[in-house]
Amino acid sequence: MVARVTLLYAHPYPQRSRAGRVLLDAVRGLPFVDVRALYSLYPDFAIDVEAEQRALLASDVIVWQSPFYWYGAPAMLHHWFEKVLARGWAYGSGGDKLRGKRVLWVTTTGAPDSAYRPGAMHGHPFDAFVPAFQQTAVFCGMRWEEPIVVHHAHQLGDEKLAAAAAEYRRRLEAL
Amino acid sequence: MVARVTLLYAHPYPQRSRAGRVLLDAVRGLPFVDVRALYSLYPDFAIDVEAEQRALLASDVIVWQSPFYWYGAPAMLHHWFEKVLARGWAYGSGGDKLRGKRVLWVTTTGAPDSAYRPGAMHGHPFDAFVPAFQQTAVFCGMRWEEPIVVHHAHQLGDEKLAAAAAEYRRRLEAL
Repeated sequence: MVARVTLLYAHPYPQRSRAGRVLLDAVRGLPFVDVRALYSLYPDFAIDVEAEQRALLASDVIVWQSPFYWYGAPAMLHHWFEKVLARGWAYGSGGDKLRGKRVLWVTTTGAPDSAYRPGAMHGHPFDAFVPAFQQTAVFCGMRWEEPIVVHHAHQLGDEKLAAAAAEYRRRLEAL
Repeated sequence: MVARVTLLYAHPYPQRSRAGRVLLDAVRGLPFVDVRALYSLYPDFAIDVEAEQRALLASDVIVWQSPFYWYGAPAMLHHWFEKVLARGWAYGSGGDKLRGKRVLWVTTTGAPDSAYRPGAMHGHPFDAFVPAFQQTAVFCGMRWEEPIVVHHAHQLGDEKLAAAAAEYRRRLEAL
């Protein structure tokens, strides 16, 4: 049986993002993928927690797709963590609703991979910024999949971007 | 000369937070401290970027005070990073407005320090989650001060909380 996927897309400027759009377009047509574009759904950040939780309950895989901003998730995705991953629902006493589901984090960065190391522009290997995301999933009993990280997204040639998008699609089909 | 401090307070439920309030009350009366309670100022997340940038320009020290949520900054503080620390202002070409200012991160967590280690509830030492904050400051040319981290904030006895608050005040007076 094919896994059902809820894809949270958190890009504040979806019109301006070539990479985000190409990646999303590669998977949004898959019949088992439900895309929720958070910034469009909630322009004033008033997340409908029940609707979000319903979508998660109906899915086996949760995708967090967003640009990488200030070494973390865009504000809307973090807000989604805070509101939707509620105590007693996602963690804590009785909070077992997400247990065993899988999380795939898909993110685009502005800088090349080489900027992520000591002494370079971003000072740390990219992996230094992964635990916050991974541990958010693990804390809710979810299974962490190897993330898809597309560096240097603004400058990436069309061919390389298409390859990343194809990989994204393959990964979702295989889950 | 005493340093001028802009204190960004990012707590979505300030009435419910004993620790946040005790810490804030210890410093808010200092004449050189300007408190900006972000969730009160911007209930719909529509940050006034110019007002925020004006406040920063007039200050030598920037304090980020918030609870620690999902291994990072509350959504509002992250939104503030995204909006206020703009390219061409805070970083990138011409983005030198914050250079040399100091940043003090003050945060409260729900779990004891012992929960932050491999195999424990939070899976990583607390320090694993610091680079995202530190690098945000460093990327804007700011100087990173040793953070104040108050663990187990809900359970902390009044005396220990008062001691943390007094340390916070001392730190601001010394900067």
